[in-house]
Amino acid sequence: MSLLNGIVPPVLTPLRADGSLDLDSLDRLVEHLISGGVSGVFVLGSSGQVAYLTDAERDTVVDRVVALAAGRVPVFVGTPDMSAARVIDQARHVEARGADAVVVTAPLYSLNDAGEIAEHFRLVARAVSVPVVAYDVPVRVHTKLGVDMLVELGREGVLAGVKDSSGDDVAFRRLVAANRAAGSPLSLSTGHEVMVDGMALLGADGAVPGLANVDPAGYARLWRAASEGDWTAARAEQDRLARLFEIAFVPQGRSGDAAGIGAFKAAAAALGIIDTPTMPAPMRGLTDAETEQIVAILDEVGLTR
Amino acid sequence: MSLLNGIVPPVLTPLRADGSLDLDSLDRLVEHLISGGVSGVFVLGSSGQVAYLTDAERDTVVDRVVALAAGRVPVFVGTPDMSAARVIDQARHVEARGADAVVVTAPLYSLNDAGEIAEHFRLVARAVSVPVVAYDVPVRVHTKLGVDMLVELGREGVLAGVKDSSGDDVAFRRLVAANRAAGSPLSLSTGHEVMVDGMALLGADGAVPGLANVDPAGYARLWRAASEGDWTAARAEQDRLARLFEIAFVPQGRSGDAAGIGAFKAAAAALGIIDTPTMPAPMRGLTDAETEQIVAILDEVGLTR
Amino acid sequence: MSLLNGIVPPVLTPLRADGSLDLDSLDRLVEHLISGGVSGVFVLGSSGQVAYLTDAERDTVVDRVVALAAGRVPVFVGTPDMSAARVIDQARHVEARGADAVVVTAPLYSLNDAGEIAEHFRLVARAVSVPVVAYDVPVRVHTKLGVDMLVELGREGVLAGVKDSSGDDVAFRRLVAANRAAGSPLSLSTGHEVMVDGMALLGADGAVPGLANVDPAGYARLWRAASEGDWTAARAEQDRLARLFEIAFVPQGRSGDAAGIGAFKAAAAALGIIDTPTMPAPMRGLTDAETEQIVAILDEVGLTR
Amino acid sequence: MSLLNGIVPPVLTPLRADGSLDLDSLDRLVEHLISGGVSGVFVLGSSGQVAYLTDAERDTVVDRVVALAAGRVPVFVGTPDMSAARVIDQARHVEARGADAVVVTAPLYSLNDAGEIAEHFRLVARAVSVPVVAYDVPVRVHTKLGVDMLVELGREGVLAGVKDSSGDDVAFRRLVAANRAAGSPLSLSTGHEVMVDGMALLGADGAVPGLANVDPAGYARLWRAASEGDWTAARAEQDRLARLFEIAFVPQGRSGDAAGIGAFKAAAAALGIIDTPTMPAPMRGLTDAETEQIVAILDEVGLTR
Repeated sequence: MSLLNGIVPPVLTPLRADGSLDLDSLDRLVEHLISGGVSGVFVLGSSGQVAYLTDAERDTVVDRVVALAAGRVPVFVGTPDMSAARVIDQARHVEARGADAVVVTAPLYSLNDAGEIAEHFRLVARAVSVPVVAYDVPVRVHTKLGVDMLVELGREGVLAGVKDSSGDDVAFRRLVAANRAAGSPLSLSTGHEVMVDGMALLGADGAVPGLANVDPAGYARLWRAASEGDWTAARAEQDRLARLFEIAFVPQGRSGDAAGIGAFKAAAAALGIIDTPTMPAPMRGLTDAETEQIVAILDEVGLTR
Repeated sequence: MSLLNGIVPPVLTPLRADGSLDLDSLDRLVEHLISGGVSGVFVLGSSGQVAYLTDAERDTVVDRVVALAAGRVPVFVGTPDMSAARVIDQARHVEARGADAVVVTAPLYSLNDAGEIAEHFRLVARAVSVPVVAYDVPVRVHTKLGVDMLVELGREGVLAGVKDSSGDDVAFRRLVAANRAAGSPLSLSTGHEVMVDGMALLGADGAVPGLANVDPAGYARLWRAASEGDWTAARAEQDRLARLFEIAFVPQGRSGDAAGIGAFKAAAAALGIIDTPTMPAPMRGLTDAETEQIVAILDEVGLTR
Repeated sequence: MSLLNGIVPPVLTPLRADGSLDLDSLDRLVEHLISGGVSGVFVLGSSGQVAYLTDAERDTVVDRVVALAAGRVPVFVGTPDMSAARVIDQARHVEARGADAVVVTAPLYSLNDAGEIAEHFRLVARAVSVPVVAYDVPVRVHTKLGVDMLVELGREGVLAGVKDSSGDDVAFRRLVAANRAAGSPLSLSTGHEVMVDGMALLGADGAVPGLANVDPAGYARLWRAASEGDWTAARAEQDRLARLFEIAFVPQGRSGDAAGIGAFKAAAAALGIIDTPTMPAPMRGLTDAETEQIVAILDEVGLTR
Repeated sequence: MSLLNGIVPPVLTPLRADGSLDLDSLDRLVEHLISGGVSGVFVLGSSGQVAYLTDAERDTVVDRVVALAAGRVPVFVGTPDMSAARVIDQARHVEARGADAVVVTAPLYSLNDAGEIAEHFRLVARAVSVPVVAYDVPVRVHTKLGVDMLVELGREGVLAGVKDSSGDDVAFRRLVAANRAAGSPLSLSTGHEVMVDGMALLGADGAVPGLANVDPAGYARLWRAASEGDWTAARAEQDRLARLFEIAFVPQGRSGDAAGIGAFKAAAAALGIIDTPTMPAPMRGLTDAETEQIVAILDEVGLTR
């Protein structure tokens, strides 16, 4: 079974109205995901607002989800940081707390070339025992991981998989083909909420859609249809989920983080999955009018409390 | 006296051949800077390779430099991180260790808008007692701080100064003028090694040139000439230092971090200021041929051991 | 029938060894495309190296292809230029020469906002009688056309279709959905060689793949399979064509134009479709070694003279 | 005398209220510039809105200004286009009409590498007899011309000068130094309105400021002071002109072209230098409120009709 097989949602980090972690909501959310049919959960990702959590909060989230998952599904943990030395500190730390795999980006802030970035992944992989998944997210990290480098690191046993949030579908199809030609050392997953059918068609092993926090069962159905080769059903479910994804475009004139994750949290709160849609400072939550529009979309696609 | 007045070098972090901190070299380097006539020192900046240092190493560097400076010059400390919550943890930590001011970038990894970034600085400033300097470095942080926002945050007492490494000289001149019109709440410093004369002419309060690790006395002379209105002498010294800055362009086909800071370290080691030019992994040091070219430039501009 | 229905290749512009237009090869190429089963031909596109052709050469190409097509398939003509005033001159000119539709980008060189770009398309559409297709190619034009603007211009009757070469699959799926919700005023076509199956699955009306110059029959088969809902066959054909597309990655260390179109020309010449793979100055053609690798890929996917 | 010595304004293209060329205003503007003390005039530049002019309009502008200048000052003519073949057509054309030099950008729309861009300039230079000035404007052309390439093309006799509108002051200082070391084959000019004093200090031969349309005498005074080494006077004049440049920031929420050139035209019209501030479609002119703010700034810096 491929490491990133099926649907592995990047888990939202629910907050109480005062901005502190809301662990009861986190529990409820994770149960909602598992009962919805996901294959794993990914904490401390971009949708989990890892950037806004202190080290102490990160520890709390990891501990809670590891305990709750209790081996039912694997727990992937994100470790974004500026360099190999710092990622290693984080990766060893979360491995010790029970992470089943770590999800590692290219360096932040640093100005490294492709050779240095490959070595960055090698240094991290050497320092931990759990599998390393490369997280390709140029919109945040400002580096695109190359197809040849990823497959080579797969061959070397450095990387076990790739979560592709690059939006570069040409590169992803080339990666799928090159990985297959190399004996499939990598498990390949797309981060794109609205392209899961197409990516499954071309050979993705799974998907890591933030929107699955809102409708895990929908994504599970989509994946099942795709796995069975029922592309008409897969497309229909994906079209429904693409309509649902329009919640991310309801907020206008907001930052990327405030709009997208704000919409996911507003929807999850409206559905009662989490208690409040509170956003970490300095971001503000959505307006009532925006939330109403989001609720209307939830109704439209058949999601109700 | 303006907070960032004169030359405040971003201090290199010397390493031993095995990659561990070389504190004896750090001491020597800091003494070299102070005796060269600098007005302050800035540790854990980009030239200090802050991205490559673990939390423990960062603590060691801050402690060592604070102890050595011993109040002779102020110690500025960089705290780059992903969000206000995380920068606050770092800023309080270094304040407790004796930092005289903290140097704060816009958020990394996060996708925030201008309003959120202004609030980011407000949250950090509220959490510490020392002055907060904004570090505008879009090449690393991928955000340009706006003139109006900076002056407004100066007026509010949130920011005490700006280290401008944006390379946007039009914006910097506008910032100088707007700051003056607002009663000069901000101390304004340029990070550009080769434009100190021109920036002094237009009204900068100081400069934070990485190259000053190699020739602090040269930059002190340049600044003195500019302060005295002797622009011919200032230009001549700047032309010499611009020639010296060509060491940063000796390495070809290297990453931004490996070439620039690699050259500064190679020069500092060749001059005996630090023991080795060791670079943190995954970067490799310069080749012998590159080092020879750098030594030739040192000779040319009159710098010898 | 949707305007951009099926496969509409952007026709290469064959040159003789001395750099002049090779009209006999152009004839042969267009016949090869039509007999391969394409639904239309698009001249003076990026693959046609429109940027490198003088006004006189552009006229010659349009006249020749219009005459040869002789109504068997529609002839789309590209009119990239810096502003509406200049595009209008070009668009009226090619309309008079027999173009069936014009393909228009956002302004080049100019620094316009979204409202001005919408107005740009309105001005052009008002000036011609033939349908206007928007060509969304941010890698060249440095502007991404927004989903809402495109659908609105469709509703207004300004645009008849969109050729999407943006590489932004999320936006393309949103465009397909929004267009459908608006009553499908736009015909929507993807420019991506390796994603035709996935884009057909999500509802594209057609594709404009440069690689179809090399294997029009393969793309025609792919499109037919997709149209019949035989996604397994569509994917198999697309996988074969994705393998063929690896010819574009054979040239290393080349510019974007020299590598991609150079490879298409080298392949077309190797297959005898055109006489020589000559590239316009200042680009140089591929090396013999590169051409050999390309020929090996042609063999591998079953394309031989 | 250096080709680009002193102040060479990029001449605005005045329009009548109906959008047609206003040649009387153009005459008045050019006389205003010459009597203001400029060293040359540059038509069909970005400030001249070359992108928005048809070929016929371009001809008219060149003819009129060549006739009016009548050898009193040299006339530089811009020829932005997509490739060498097309630039050659334009450059030969304007040479025949009396241009004293042509101003050439890197290719538009094309995806060329550094070697191809160097060859682009060689091809153009070979095709004309007048001097070729490279126009480095990455914000429009999306290519930065390298220091080494420019100096090499100077050495070869391909380029006679560079108009630097890149905003990269580090590169410009390196260019000045490298050009001097090569025997000064290039005449080097800055396009930045607010940095003329600093650029003169570091060795620029001249400036090409769009704002000089509004206050040519101010720029002439600035340049004279700098030439005489009176840096205090130069800075004071530059500070005044930097204050004047704030007119470009009056329009909020406008496109780059609409705001900057819109402000220059509004100021020139308010001063009676041209009849109307009409902008070419699809841009709209500034509002009355914006124009009032601009007039207030004109008053403040002592410019009145």
